[in-house]
Amino acid sequence: MAHHKSHLTREGHQWTPQSGLQSGIPSIGVIKPSANRPSTKIHEVLVIGAGYTGLTALRDLTVAGHDVLLVEARDRIGGRTWSSNIDGYPYEMGGTWVHWNQPFVWRELARYGMSKDLEISPVTGKGLDRATFVRPGSTVHMSREEEFSTLNSAVRKFVNVDGKHGRALFPYPHNPHFNPDVAHYDTISFADRFAQIEDDMTPLELQLLKTFLSVTSGGTMENSGFFEFLRWWALNNYDLQELSELCLTFKLRDGQSALARRIFDDAVATGNLTYSFNSPVASVTDLGSHVEVKTRGGDVFKARRIIATVPLNILNDIKWSPPLLPGKQAASAQGHVNKCTKVHAEVANPALRSFTGYRWEGPLSWTFGDGTTPAGNTHLVAFGPSYEGIQLKLAQNQAQGALEAYKAFAPGEFDDVRRLVFHDWNEDEFAKGTWEFLGPNMATRYLDVLRKRQGNVLFASADWAMGWRGFIDGGIEDGANAAMELALEFRAAKGESGNTGKLVSKL
Amino acid sequence: MAHHKSHLTREGHQWTPQSGLQSGIPSIGVIKPSANRPSTKIHEVLVIGAGYTGLTALRDLTVAGHDVLLVEARDRIGGRTWSSNIDGYPYEMGGTWVHWNQPFVWRELARYGMSKDLEISPVTGKGLDRATFVRPGSTVHMSREEEFSTLNSAVRKFVNVDGKHGRALFPYPHNPHFNPDVAHYDTISFADRFAQIEDDMTPLELQLLKTFLSVTSGGTMENSGFFEFLRWWALNNYDLQELSELCLTFKLRDGQSALARRIFDDAVATGNLTYSFNSPVASVTDLGSHVEVKTRGGDVFKARRIIATVPLNILNDIKWSPPLLPGKQAASAQGHVNKCTKVHAEVANPALRSFTGYRWEGPLSWTFGDGTTPAGNTHLVAFGPSYEGIQLKLAQNQAQGALEAYKAFAPGEFDDVRRLVFHDWNEDEFAKGTWEFLGPNMATRYLDVLRKRQGNVLFASADWAMGWRGFIDGGIEDGANAAMELALEFRAAKGESGNTGKLVSKL
Repeated sequence: MAHHKSHLTREGHQWTPQSGLQSGIPSIGVIKPSANRPSTKIHEVLVIGAGYTGLTALRDLTVAGHDVLLVEARDRIGGRTWSSNIDGYPYEMGGTWVHWNQPFVWRELARYGMSKDLEISPVTGKGLDRATFVRPGSTVHMSREEEFSTLNSAVRKFVNVDGKHGRALFPYPHNPHFNPDVAHYDTISFADRFAQIEDDMTPLELQLLKTFLSVTSGGTMENSGFFEFLRWWALNNYDLQELSELCLTFKLRDGQSALARRIFDDAVATGNLTYSFNSPVASVTDLGSHVEVKTRGGDVFKARRIIATVPLNILNDIKWSPPLLPGKQAASAQGHVNKCTKVHAEVANPALRSFTGYRWEGPLSWTFGDGTTPAGNTHLVAFGPSYEGIQLKLAQNQAQGALEAYKAFAPGEFDDVRRLVFHDWNEDEFAKGTWEFLGPNMATRYLDVLRKRQGNVLFASADWAMGWRGFIDGGIEDGANAAMELALEFRAAKGESGNTGKLVSKL
Repeated sequence: MAHHKSHLTREGHQWTPQSGLQSGIPSIGVIKPSANRPSTKIHEVLVIGAGYTGLTALRDLTVAGHDVLLVEARDRIGGRTWSSNIDGYPYEMGGTWVHWNQPFVWRELARYGMSKDLEISPVTGKGLDRATFVRPGSTVHMSREEEFSTLNSAVRKFVNVDGKHGRALFPYPHNPHFNPDVAHYDTISFADRFAQIEDDMTPLELQLLKTFLSVTSGGTMENSGFFEFLRWWALNNYDLQELSELCLTFKLRDGQSALARRIFDDAVATGNLTYSFNSPVASVTDLGSHVEVKTRGGDVFKARRIIATVPLNILNDIKWSPPLLPGKQAASAQGHVNKCTKVHAEVANPALRSFTGYRWEGPLSWTFGDGTTPAGNTHLVAFGPSYEGIQLKLAQNQAQGALEAYKAFAPGEFDDVRRLVFHDWNEDEFAKGTWEFLGPNMATRYLDVLRKRQGNVLFASADWAMGWRGFIDGGIEDGANAAMELALEFRAAKGESGNTGKLVSKL
C-alpha cells in the first residue's frame, strides 16, 4: 500500500507499443513542492543528496533535534534506488532486493513496521521453468538443478583461493582487512583469476560464470577487481544459494521508494528538516566558520557542517574549495567500473514467470521472471554488460535494441511485449554508472582516503561503505556513521559550552 | 578498552583456590550512584528494566527528545547479558556472541564505532585440538572434521522436514509464519522429532546431537519445542557452519557490558534520562491518565506510558492492575524452558585453548576454549543441561560440582583450575532462567498475546521478539519497536494539538 500519490519524475523511460518511447515515469519518491521553505540561515548540517545515505543521515540528525538542510539535484528521493509505480505495480529502477542479513536496511524496515512487507521475486513451477543459455554454437536448456550446479561448481572454483571457498581468507567481511592476506587479491582482476583456474572449468561453466559476473560487477573481466568479488561472496555467507537469497530474492511489495519515503517523512515530521530539490550543487566552499554550497541555479546555502553523499563517479563534477584530497580526485577520475544496464519488460506471456535466460555477450545477458503485474502479464527484469560495441545505449532511443535483446533469450516467447521500463544510469549525470564495483587495486589505494573528512565536510556513500559496499545497506550504514559523528561533535561542543539543558542549535 | 571503572555488582560468583566461593564480581555495567536525580513528576515514558531491550527503548526515546525514567531492579545494566571484568579479562555471564547477520545488534555496534571490536572465540591448532565426547561405555576423540561431519549429519537429519533442510518450510525466518505449514511443527517436541528419525541415526550422531540440543534449548528433549529450533536454524542460514559463526564465534573484545554502557551513556548524555537502579518493581497500576509503578521499597514512579521489559518467566511476579491478559499470565506460568547452566573456567593449561569437550548427561555437557587470559591461562566456557538430578545447583555453593564437571571432560587436563566465574540465572529472581526457548505449542498459543499492549503499558522483550528471539539481537529489535510505537504516538498527539514548533514534553 502506497501512502503517497505518484508524481511524474523527469527521470526514467517507458516504452509501449502504443506510445513508443517516453521520458519521465511516475514515482511516489517525487517531492512536490520541491522546497518546503526558504533557507537563508546557517543550518547545523547540510546534506547533499537524498539517496539512502543522505536520507539516513538527515533522519538520524533531525530526529535527534538537529537543524538540517537537504539539497538534492533530482526531483525525487532515492538516488540510485527508486521505484516507478505504473498501473499499480512497482518497477525497481535501481537497487531492489534486501534481506535480514543486510543489517542496516533490515533495521530500517523494522523501524517502519515493514519487515513483513517483502515478497519473493523468483518462483518455480510457472511455465517455462528452466534456464536457457543462448551461446555461440548451441543453446543449452538447463533444469533449475542443472543451472545451480553448473554455476555453483564454477563460482566455487573461482573463489576457492584458500581451500575453504573464501571462509579462511575473509572470516569477517564487515572488517575486510581483518586478515592482511586479502591485499594480494586486490591486485588482480577477474581475468587474472580466470587465467589461474580456467583449465579446470568446462566450457559451459566458464561461459555461464563469465555471463553472471558481467552483470555482477557491471564491468569487463579485465577491469573488475577480484577482491571486491571475494568480499561480496563472504558477505553472502560463502554460498551461491545464500547469494541468491540475499541479493536476488526478497523485494519490497510497495517498492523501494516506499521505504525511502518513510525515512524522508520521518525527518519532515520532526519539523527540523528544510529541503530543496532540483538543486544540483555546483560548488562547496569551506570557509572554516561555515560552508557555502552554491547550486547551478545560483542559490547559496550555508551550514556549519556538510555531509556530501555524492557518488564516486561524479565527485569531481563539483568544485570543492579547498580542493578534494588528491586520492579522492584520482579515485573519482578512475571511477568504479559498474556500467551495467537494467531493463524491465512486461510481457503478455504467463509462461515466462519462472523463466531464466542467459545470453553470451548479449546486450542483455541475463533475465528472469520477477513478478506478475495487476494486468496478469509477466514482469521480467534483465541486465546487460558494459562491453564496448555490445552495450545497449538506452538513452539513444534504443528501446528497439532492448526489445530485440529480450527476444533473443527465447525466440517466440517475447512476441507480445507490452511495456519496457528503465533508467539509463550510465547517461545519468548524477550517477554516471550503477551500483559501485571497484577495479583492481582501487580498494587498497582509495577506500581510506575516500572515507576521509575534509574540515567541515564529511563524505558518506554506499560507494565506500565498510560492509555491503555498493548496496542499499552500505548507503544506510555510511549515512548513519556520518550522522553519528556529527551528533557526537555537537554534543561535545554543547558540553564545553556548559549548556546542558537543551539540544544545541548552533556551535 | 573499557571506558569505565568496574564496580562490584552483588550478582555473580567467583571461585578461586585461594578464596573459595565468593559472591559479587566486578563489572563496568554497575551504575554508581544508583540514581541520578529525584523523580516525582509524571514522565513521558517509564522503562522497566535495563537489559538490551530497555536500553534500546530508552536510548531511542531520549535521543528523540522524550523524557524517560528507567526503573531497574538490579545494580547494573544489561539484564541477562553482562560481562565481569576480572584481572583485565571480560567474562560473559550471559549473552556473548554476535554477528553481522544479526541486524539489530550489528547496527548498534556500528552506531558506537565498535564493528571492528570483535575477536574470534574458537581457534584451532593450539594444543589438544580435538573434540572429546565422554559417553557411557567409550570416550570418543574426534578430529575437528569428524566432530563437524558427525554433528552436521545428525542435525541435517533432524531439520530435514521438507527435503531442503528447512529452507522450503522457513524461507523467511523474520516472518516465521509466512508459510502456514510451520504450525504443525510447533505441536511437537525434540523428543517427538527424534521418534521420527532416530532409526536413521548412528548412536554417536544421536548422542552428540542430543548433547548439543540440551544446551541449545536449555530444556529437556520432552519440553523443548521443535518449531523454535527450526526457526533458529533458518535464522542461521540453514547451515551448521553458519550457526557456529553466527552464534558461537565473534565476541566483543571489551565484553558485552561495554556495548550496553555505550547505549546507556548515549541516553544519559541527552539530559533526558532519569534513572533509579536497585528498584525492583512490585506493582504497575494503569490509571488511564498515567501509570503508577511502585517498587518493593515503597517508591512510587509515574509516567504516561510504560515499556515493561520484564522477562517472560517473571511477568507474573509483578502485580499488574488491570491484570495481565490471561494469555500472558498462562505463558508466564508455564515459562520458557531454558534452565541452562553456564560456567567459566580459567585453567593453567595452554593445551586446552583449542579443546572441545562433550559429555553425555554431564552436569556440564559442553565446553570449549574461549580465550587466553592476560595471565596466560586458558579460558574455557561450559554449558550444562537442566536435567533433573543432574543439573548443577550453582547457588548452593556447588563450585566443587563445577570443578568436577570440568575435570570429567578430560581427566588430567583440568588439574590446575585457577578460577571459576558464573551467574546462576536459574536462581536469579529477576530472570528465573537463561535465554528464552519455548516449549511445544507455546509459539502458536502465546506469542501474539505476549506482544499485545495493555492500555498505557507496552511489553517488549527478546523473549517474544520476531527475529532472533532469546538473543541480544531480539531484545534490541523489540525495544526499538516499542520506542518507535510511542514516538509515533507522541508525534500524532503533538500534531493534533497543533503544536508543531517543538518536541512535545507532555501529552
